[in-house]
Amino acid sequence: MNELDWVRWIGRRAGKRRELILGIGDDCAIYRPPGASEDQLFTTDMLVEGVHFRTADPPDVIGHRALARGLSDIAACGGEPRFCLLSLARTRRHDDGWLKRFYAGLLELAEATGTVLAGGDLSTSDQLTCDVTVCGAAPRGQALRRSGAQHGDRIYVSGPLGASAAAGFPPLKFTPRLKLGVQLRGAASACIDITDGLALDLHRLCMASGLSADLTSVPIAPGATLEDALHGGEDYELLFTAPVNSQAGVEIGVMRAGPAGTVRLNSATVLPTGYDHFERV
Amino acid sequence: MNELDWVRWIGRRAGKRRELILGIGDDCAIYRPPGASEDQLFTTDMLVEGVHFRTADPPDVIGHRALARGLSDIAACGGEPRFCLLSLARTRRHDDGWLKRFYAGLLELAEATGTVLAGGDLSTSDQLTCDVTVCGAAPRGQALRRSGAQHGDRIYVSGPLGASAAAGFPPLKFTPRLKLGVQLRGAASACIDITDGLALDLHRLCMASGLSADLTSVPIAPGATLEDALHGGEDYELLFTAPVNSQAGVEIGVMRAGPAGTVRLNSATVLPTGYDHFERV
Repeated sequence: MNELDWVRWIGRRAGKRRELILGIGDDCAIYRPPGASEDQLFTTDMLVEGVHFRTADPPDVIGHRALARGLSDIAACGGEPRFCLLSLARTRRHDDGWLKRFYAGLLELAEATGTVLAGGDLSTSDQLTCDVTVCGAAPRGQALRRSGAQHGDRIYVSGPLGASAAAGFPPLKFTPRLKLGVQLRGAASACIDITDGLALDLHRLCMASGLSADLTSVPIAPGATLEDALHGGEDYELLFTAPVNSQAGVEIGVMRAGPAGTVRLNSATVLPTGYDHFERV
Repeated sequence: MNELDWVRWIGRRAGKRRELILGIGDDCAIYRPPGASEDQLFTTDMLVEGVHFRTADPPDVIGHRALARGLSDIAACGGEPRFCLLSLARTRRHDDGWLKRFYAGLLELAEATGTVLAGGDLSTSDQLTCDVTVCGAAPRGQALRRSGAQHGDRIYVSGPLGASAAAGFPPLKFTPRLKLGVQLRGAASACIDITDGLALDLHRLCMASGLSADLTSVPIAPGATLEDALHGGEDYELLFTAPVNSQAGVEIGVMRAGPAGTVRLNSATVLPTGYDHFERV
């Protein structure tokens, strides 16, 4: 079973609750506390040494990315960050100085985005591992999802793609598109952040919306190739659809009726290949 | 820096937010969504192969414990579980069948306790690692904390201690004391769950309440020693204080004015030793 098979398998067994407006399968879960004026958005991201970053990477960059990935999910749902929880397993190779620099990188981004560190867990392992849960909020019923696109909606991306893939592993610090996400509430019909490449993430948006996509152009970052932009991943731009012209992004195509999930670039089918995070290699 | 030093160091840098009623340092963080009738409780627990469980342990037991530890924190705060998030890093040694049994153990407990699996992240590592965030709820202002004990309050524990330590690593499945936690709302003045042994967890409750404790007895599980009960940990009973006689637990002592954090058993000081989860060994 690959990652998508697992997401489906788990989703069928996850249970239901009235307050849980949206469960497994989007960038965030949406929870509506009884009586609350805001819906809550929840996302969690795990980083593992040697898988998501290299041992020699600067600790503040690792700390920054540990939080930034979750914040990008909050942005994709049009949310404003509220707080985060951090579980961290250190190794005997990571001394107090290393950990302080890791926290400095995470907390600098937390402060800049209004994200309070509300709790966590401390443990040990042979590979440094951290898992960050982020809670964000959006006015009741206004969170963005992957599933709202309609036939004829234009497709937009918030910036050029492929820079991370072109620069090689790992990407540098990036700024989650939080302001844009808030701006897109009520304007975008669907939204997702690009973590695994335009091809795979647009495929996901198409699957969730039951549509296909016709791309007419792909904005490529300086030094990157079309392959980097389509399949490279780690871009953290927002990919969104809107029924009317948007000035918030670069228009790259249009949503079409089925077959659901199909992505075409100038009439040629683009395969939804990208990184499978859960393959047993 | 040991685990407690780190908790303090992080707590000073964690930031503040009006809705965050209680941040780092208790069993759960307490968050009050604008307009909501319930306060929300959040806790997160990481399990690492070779640290918190053995490679050969039954996968359903590992899945059960991954969720049960967080549910025990929710119980200690008098909360009712709402949902959880699970991040999981598999290794190449853990095949699909193993993972399905892991999820079966976790989801069986989730269903029995009304905890919906709302989301998660899937990754890979060389050690199986999982991190579970649990959200619970309590009526506004009624969540239990470690810090509310008063001079003269009786001290109670919900059951005999030391069974896990006596049985050896790791403990079997356990049932989080969720019903008792709800029952203690409005009745207990302070509460904590016993994860690291009576001595250390009572020390924590004393520190948070600014008091000391005089123990007169310790209920010891069959086959366990006093040492197991005081310092063994992994009991997951609730330790609570109350101003009036409680039928909900076994009375073991009384809270006294300072020196804050001191625990005595029949006048002899008990050292707050237990497992340090973050020592760089």
